[in-house]
Amino acid sequence: MIDLRSDTVTTPSAAMREAARDADVGDDVYRDDPTVNELERRAADVVGCEAALFVPTGTMGNQVAAAVHADPGHEVLVDSEAHVVRWELGGLAQGSGLQTRTVDAGDRAVPSPERIHDSCHDRDLHRPGTGLLWLENTHNARGGVAVPVDRIRAAAAAAHERDVPVHLDGARLFNACVARGVDPVEMVAPVDSVLFCLSKGLGAPVGSMLAGSEAFVEAARRIRKRYGGGMRQAGLIAAPGLHALENRDRLATDHEHATRLASGLDTLDGVSARDPETNIVLVDVAGTGFDAESFVDACAARDVGCVPFGGTTVRFCTHLDVDGEDVDRALDRIGDVVSAA
Amino acid sequence: MIDLRSDTVTTPSAAMREAARDADVGDDVYRDDPTVNELERRAADVVGCEAALFVPTGTMGNQVAAAVHADPGHEVLVDSEAHVVRWELGGLAQGSGLQTRTVDAGDRAVPSPERIHDSCHDRDLHRPGTGLLWLENTHNARGGVAVPVDRIRAAAAAAHERDVPVHLDGARLFNACVARGVDPVEMVAPVDSVLFCLSKGLGAPVGSMLAGSEAFVEAARRIRKRYGGGMRQAGLIAAPGLHALENRDRLATDHEHATRLASGLDTLDGVSARDPETNIVLVDVAGTGFDAESFVDACAARDVGCVPFGGTTVRFCTHLDVDGEDVDRALDRIGDVVSAA
Amino acid sequence: MIDLRSDTVTTPSAAMREAARDADVGDDVYRDDPTVNELERRAADVVGCEAALFVPTGTMGNQVAAAVHADPGHEVLVDSEAHVVRWELGGLAQGSGLQTRTVDAGDRAVPSPERIHDSCHDRDLHRPGTGLLWLENTHNARGGVAVPVDRIRAAAAAAHERDVPVHLDGARLFNACVARGVDPVEMVAPVDSVLFCLSKGLGAPVGSMLAGSEAFVEAARRIRKRYGGGMRQAGLIAAPGLHALENRDRLATDHEHATRLASGLDTLDGVSARDPETNIVLVDVAGTGFDAESFVDACAARDVGCVPFGGTTVRFCTHLDVDGEDVDRALDRIGDVVSAA
Amino acid sequence: MIDLRSDTVTTPSAAMREAARDADVGDDVYRDDPTVNELERRAADVVGCEAALFVPTGTMGNQVAAAVHADPGHEVLVDSEAHVVRWELGGLAQGSGLQTRTVDAGDRAVPSPERIHDSCHDRDLHRPGTGLLWLENTHNARGGVAVPVDRIRAAAAAAHERDVPVHLDGARLFNACVARGVDPVEMVAPVDSVLFCLSKGLGAPVGSMLAGSEAFVEAARRIRKRYGGGMRQAGLIAAPGLHALENRDRLATDHEHATRLASGLDTLDGVSARDPETNIVLVDVAGTGFDAESFVDACAARDVGCVPFGGTTVRFCTHLDVDGEDVDRALDRIGDVVSAA
Repeated sequence: MIDLRSDTVTTPSAAMREAARDADVGDDVYRDDPTVNELERRAADVVGCEAALFVPTGTMGNQVAAAVHADPGHEVLVDSEAHVVRWELGGLAQGSGLQTRTVDAGDRAVPSPERIHDSCHDRDLHRPGTGLLWLENTHNARGGVAVPVDRIRAAAAAAHERDVPVHLDGARLFNACVARGVDPVEMVAPVDSVLFCLSKGLGAPVGSMLAGSEAFVEAARRIRKRYGGGMRQAGLIAAPGLHALENRDRLATDHEHATRLASGLDTLDGVSARDPETNIVLVDVAGTGFDAESFVDACAARDVGCVPFGGTTVRFCTHLDVDGEDVDRALDRIGDVVSAA
Repeated sequence: MIDLRSDTVTTPSAAMREAARDADVGDDVYRDDPTVNELERRAADVVGCEAALFVPTGTMGNQVAAAVHADPGHEVLVDSEAHVVRWELGGLAQGSGLQTRTVDAGDRAVPSPERIHDSCHDRDLHRPGTGLLWLENTHNARGGVAVPVDRIRAAAAAAHERDVPVHLDGARLFNACVARGVDPVEMVAPVDSVLFCLSKGLGAPVGSMLAGSEAFVEAARRIRKRYGGGMRQAGLIAAPGLHALENRDRLATDHEHATRLASGLDTLDGVSARDPETNIVLVDVAGTGFDAESFVDACAARDVGCVPFGGTTVRFCTHLDVDGEDVDRALDRIGDVVSAA
Repeated sequence: MIDLRSDTVTTPSAAMREAARDADVGDDVYRDDPTVNELERRAADVVGCEAALFVPTGTMGNQVAAAVHADPGHEVLVDSEAHVVRWELGGLAQGSGLQTRTVDAGDRAVPSPERIHDSCHDRDLHRPGTGLLWLENTHNARGGVAVPVDRIRAAAAAAHERDVPVHLDGARLFNACVARGVDPVEMVAPVDSVLFCLSKGLGAPVGSMLAGSEAFVEAARRIRKRYGGGMRQAGLIAAPGLHALENRDRLATDHEHATRLASGLDTLDGVSARDPETNIVLVDVAGTGFDAESFVDACAARDVGCVPFGGTTVRFCTHLDVDGEDVDRALDRIGDVVSAA
Repeated sequence: MIDLRSDTVTTPSAAMREAARDADVGDDVYRDDPTVNELERRAADVVGCEAALFVPTGTMGNQVAAAVHADPGHEVLVDSEAHVVRWELGGLAQGSGLQTRTVDAGDRAVPSPERIHDSCHDRDLHRPGTGLLWLENTHNARGGVAVPVDRIRAAAAAAHERDVPVHLDGARLFNACVARGVDPVEMVAPVDSVLFCLSKGLGAPVGSMLAGSEAFVEAARRIRKRYGGGMRQAGLIAAPGLHALENRDRLATDHEHATRLASGLDTLDGVSARDPETNIVLVDVAGTGFDAESFVDACAARDVGCVPFGGTTVRFCTHLDVDGEDVDRALDRIGDVVSAA
């Protein structure tokens, strides 16, 4: 099977596996795990933050960040198609009592500075008060859009003018940086905290990093415990994570594969593919007569993995376990799916 | 002072005061208050529901309704300028763990059926699931818009197709009904529950009604207790509420006063007033050089009450303690404010 | 019917009804209601606090107090039989995310200073941290126990040594003060906030007061809004509340009636009554062959109201609508119940 | 350093490390990880449940279990010294809106059937309703008490009579089973769900298992996602977990070491040690002049790790990285600490 369902399906490299076996470990709740400590230092450096915290998943990192920045009853300003709104089970409300003000950021993927300025408001007797601006880059549900750094900067500045902190869900941060040719330090500089995953395009088996100021990370460490993220000899999974950090540059290859895939798909009868900015390809299969669910099933029957994205939209995702030949083979098989429609 | 800040400022009539004094009362937590019982029956009849519940405020009625309809972690689909989003302190999230998906309904004041159809989704491993569609009529922050009943019907139908219940925040329900010439029973028929206030244009000193099915109201009675709304000899305030129910038709007069006020304001230099549909007049004072806050202060200094509504927008509200002469006097005084600018 | 179910069943006096009718009112959300303002000043004075807030019920006042004092995730130290634990629907947890550490205070009704000292703890990486000590006086579920002021003082001192604030649920505060011959100012001095009801033994139809420092009450005003307690022309019910404040001394009569009732009940075959400290009489009916539910039903059939309190315990409550003759008549009728057993 | 702070400090064996390196993995969110799937099957078998779920920590497993069993506003009946009350940051309240009714179970470590019977109550208009009985075995804070299976059975039966489900926090379940000579299947049979850790005495680096019925685990899988516990190629840590399951019998050795340690400590001047039932030794150092904090510091200065447990109580914990010689060496060093006092 050529698995293009998600870049979360990558399996760890031999080097990562060796690193896991040989990891120097300790009890990380006591902060005694040297490999976790090293990963946290390295991760903080990569994004230019004072400190970082290892968390088992991106969802946990995002939820913890929100709880640290905002108080119960606060409002979070966020694009309506953000991962945290769509796919985190209403956690901001249920876990932290935060009201989401979802705004349709459209293809910009980030609310405009004017919109942010107008939406941010102070707490008073009646109003919740804006407690957090939430950004996402790359933006998954909008098709892996790589938001330019100046757009991040403008959004964060608008929030900061209103004394509202800014969190960046950078589950695929390095895809955005590579696509835009921007150093992660520059991309993260405008915001107050960032979450990025080691386990997507970077290929680590498990784990994400939440970075910010020393004070932010100290507070986050406590909330992580409440969420059940205080693991013990976590060095065993932190060690592959250190390798994953070295995989940032190779994301360019995933993006090339995505472009190749999109071009190929777009030539198929009844299939329309958007030109991808990173490793996510959104395809409209309306013209084939399939809806998304049945198209995905038909691909699966021909050993190509992809996922339905609502209506007639299907998502494909390239990653380090897929090479150019896999892309070509996948195109052949999907071509058969479409021909047989 | 001519108080046009809100229709919540009305003081009870002599008849209401007499009714309070003479009310037959009991302990309503034991359901022994005959006046409350009568009010609940009457209120249910007025809107064509099986049952109704007396609550001290519209906010409590709204919050209780949400808690009954939806489960923690569910998503509530709601216009971004709804009262529950703007002015209820993030209660849906903090009190009930509900995620708000705010959509910009614009001048329609109610999300379109297409938007509702596309936004409603089932609970699954990743998604919160849509637990409630929230409507508001008249729509306060959008200028007292009286949403036509067919728009309510279409929205509710779209939600019901997805098995999503619908709550109507009708704090000013009868203003909408009078403006549209629609019986409240017809207006409420498409939705699963409705909240309406006795204490705004209807003139009661305290209290709102939450109506729906028997099962809904029974569940709401319990949640009301958790919110601290289980009052004792509440007949004392229910009695004026019974009188308030008779004030529905006179809302037409408030609407005429609002139209007269808006026309007059619109003639003032630098003031632009939207033609009101009900008793709320939104005015843009940008052309006067004032911002909303300072305009309101200047009016107050001339004994006219109004409220700032963000930026250069000011809200005026007519009600039963304001007659035609008051409107004219207010226009004179506001004219002086503008001239002196 | 001689209604001894609760002192919440009292109906307002003629003077209270007149006061309601004639009340000077305004919109209390704008703080324009002179009667509410006066009641808040008077209530604060009565208990020696800087400020007070009018709330529709004792439950709301208690819930709001907890939310102001403690942060989500904090622990509240509280007797296991406190009203807030038994009869407020889990509101501390669901409304404010507070963990209850219930301790069995036994007949003392208040945890001992040693227990408080040992249970209070600071927040750290693992522990919630103690955010509030909760006291209740008189203590309802323990039989209307009037806790002596020195016991309140010792408990509060133990908490304050650990920087933990103290709230007093004084739904029947004045019953305790009268029974102990202590001025309310002295009783309340050791704690940081107090809730007392106008609608129980004091006879007001609706309403309670939450008192504390200026800063506390300002914060409470906002949380009250979130709970739906921001009423409008609330002067109509505040006016009877002002009369209720004058009813404090007459509670001694209720206590005498309770003693008379308990003595009489204790002479009945199979009935054992504790000597009451205030207006609540707990009776064990095990010896009659009835359980609590069926005993209550049998009393109701003979037009005496009382409530089951679990197992074979039944509660009677005296109040201002019950005089000495009522007590005697009730005893006769209950005697018949027991004889017929 | 001889690290007796906790059995969480164990480092993975060579076999576990090899297993991690060689693990067959997949994306566990898609349920494609064969090693996780195998671990879940095996773990379910070990405790005789239909299904099991891999979670990163015991805290997450506990929190998820509570959220599945009980509804917001429900009450959880739990010993006052349970781990979930002391060391999980108030998560039951903040994460799930659950009110804790803490009862002092004393040396029994489990509330008596009578107490459970009396405390369980139904939901009604005023009462929260009991949603869950919480047991812990071994009981950490009470000194590693191994609760006998008949006590578990009696407690669970009392709860089930009231239709209240039962969760067992078995972070150290196998210590209890080994100490009592009871098969885990028998120990778990009376309860509705169980959490046990792979990462304490069993020696896995990371991970715990939550087991119960198929329906329970399916619901738990969703809540785990909300808590951020949906990891990807988790087989890398599940593989050592499979080895950890084989370490159950060797816990007897830890218990012998604990007994040896306790006997030795008890001979020291001013030190009083309780005879341990499992691998946890609680020591009172009051007679030495030290308080717990300073005693722990003095031990650390002599390279013996232990933790303060409040007041003058210190906890030592044996585990698979500590052998008999370590115990003797630790006793020598602690003897020096006491002599130097």
